[in-house]
Amino acid sequence: MTPRIDGLQYANWSEDIFREMRAGAVDAVHVTITYHETFRETVLNIEAWNRWFERFPDLIFQGFTADDIDLARRTGRTAIFFGAQNPSCIEDDIGLVEVLHRLGLRFMQLTYNNQSLLATGCYEAHDTGLTRMGRAVVAEMNRVGLVVDMSHSGDRSTLAAIEHSTRPIAITHANPAVWHPALRNKSEDVLSALTQSGGMLGFSLYPHHLAGGTECSLQSFCEMIARSAEAYGIDALGIGSDLCQGQPDSVVDWMRTGRWTKGTDYGEGSAAAPGFPEMPAWFGSNADFTNIASGLRKVGFSDADVGALMGGNWARFFADSFGPLPEAAK
Amino acid sequence: MTPRIDGLQYANWSEDIFREMRAGAVDAVHVTITYHETFRETVLNIEAWNRWFERFPDLIFQGFTADDIDLARRTGRTAIFFGAQNPSCIEDDIGLVEVLHRLGLRFMQLTYNNQSLLATGCYEAHDTGLTRMGRAVVAEMNRVGLVVDMSHSGDRSTLAAIEHSTRPIAITHANPAVWHPALRNKSEDVLSALTQSGGMLGFSLYPHHLAGGTECSLQSFCEMIARSAEAYGIDALGIGSDLCQGQPDSVVDWMRTGRWTKGTDYGEGSAAAPGFPEMPAWFGSNADFTNIASGLRKVGFSDADVGALMGGNWARFFADSFGPLPEAAK
Repeated sequence: MTPRIDGLQYANWSEDIFREMRAGAVDAVHVTITYHETFRETVLNIEAWNRWFERFPDLIFQGFTADDIDLARRTGRTAIFFGAQNPSCIEDDIGLVEVLHRLGLRFMQLTYNNQSLLATGCYEAHDTGLTRMGRAVVAEMNRVGLVVDMSHSGDRSTLAAIEHSTRPIAITHANPAVWHPALRNKSEDVLSALTQSGGMLGFSLYPHHLAGGTECSLQSFCEMIARSAEAYGIDALGIGSDLCQGQPDSVVDWMRTGRWTKGTDYGEGSAAAPGFPEMPAWFGSNADFTNIASGLRKVGFSDADVGALMGGNWARFFADSFGPLPEAAK
Repeated sequence: MTPRIDGLQYANWSEDIFREMRAGAVDAVHVTITYHETFRETVLNIEAWNRWFERFPDLIFQGFTADDIDLARRTGRTAIFFGAQNPSCIEDDIGLVEVLHRLGLRFMQLTYNNQSLLATGCYEAHDTGLTRMGRAVVAEMNRVGLVVDMSHSGDRSTLAAIEHSTRPIAITHANPAVWHPALRNKSEDVLSALTQSGGMLGFSLYPHHLAGGTECSLQSFCEMIARSAEAYGIDALGIGSDLCQGQPDSVVDWMRTGRWTKGTDYGEGSAAAPGFPEMPAWFGSNADFTNIASGLRKVGFSDADVGALMGGNWARFFADSFGPLPEAAK
């Protein structure tokens, strides 16, 4: 049996949620530890995770390599892998790439909606592609084995990252724009380039990324995955739920606004609906991953395919990505 | 008699240099306190300046408003005005604009060669113009009276800043590219837009910005100023010497490379000439401002014109720029 892995979450962590991970048989989760945090603030978030690991050693532990997925399965726990949605955590310092990798960071987005020092976010009017620092940092991420994640980036920057990176990259949480043309969803050009270069796409369950939003049916979601598998091949696909379970709306304000404006930015929301949207009825917690697996079977995927989509593909990608390349490690 | 003002310096500060300011009758200098420094590191640089002010109260003091130029003249001292060449000092936090203005910051470049969170530097391959945060920060700079400086920015970003800013901006240290086509010098389009909007250009004496480099003659420099006065009007022009007197080459490495790459960046230099270039024989210290005034007279400027170019124009600009607009301050 293949492992079950979620390619992105940022829940309001609690013992209940860690127990739901076990109920949903989730072996590994990529969790966000940076939205706009500086290095020091990111380290504070790591410290908070260290306290969760200390309090609930029977439920969770920090994952560093793909071997930790197996360890999680053998011991009935969930391996937690750290990622940053914004390169704010490396500030202006390329030397922090190696330091954060040592602390366990395994994914880093080059941008979060806005322009960063590295590349352009999907909410900017103009997209530079990779900056001078961006090219240098991607090379350093490739060296240490820190995955480039372009979920919140503009198309030109994403294509430039795919081209410049010597290792496959990821879009951990987004859907095809052809299914639902949200700004955060991805064009066919981007998805073709991503998957043809060995990269991974994690399908998002955040309602703003779903056709029909909160009302999106499980069948529609799974049929979208089936069409994506036909278009891009099943090996490049997984889940990146973007589950923000139990977060207060102040958290979505922080995600959207950080410290970059004195005004209000509604992001994917609006003045009429500024908060977190309600999740679909069939996916409200980690316990509901079983619903997705069932839905995938119903639209015709084999057991092997369902296993690949629900985590097998992420497990292979983690194994290939989370450290120096074998020849470089010699 | 009009005051004598230099629109940019970053010397290796010492009592000797402060005495040369007096010998050159320099009433006010805009000094750089940030190249790549974070907020905290910028505050350390302010602390270092506070120690200079404490040690040499008969030579220098911190300037906050244009009135301090008059105070300097009345008391035979030089007023030191702070500026940042990089928005690294506000990190990702728009709230630091007001904080740094309160500490005395009066100029801030939106970029230093590379892409910043706000705009694009002149060394990047692609120029976004102002980013989302850039537009928000320029509005905040306008509100508090912190001058937007685009000396190291790309053309598109500079034109966007001129258009978006509700108050005149500055290019504190650069020359017309038509005279010397260096990447750091400015196009006719940029200089026209700058000066037609009430902005100021400070002519640079950094050899990489000079036709002929170190060998550039005083006459050639002053003739360039005369042509610029014909093209753009004399009121928009001053000096921004970019004097880096007595700095070791490790400082130009920091300017160019900061923490953004593990490689070597030669900036305006080259592998064959990586260090600071030698200054022209006629401008090696603050004491040599008198040479420039003489040179300007020789190419035909009247005494009144020389006074305007040597500081009168900067004095007017400082008075108009270093605080909230009168209607906003009510």
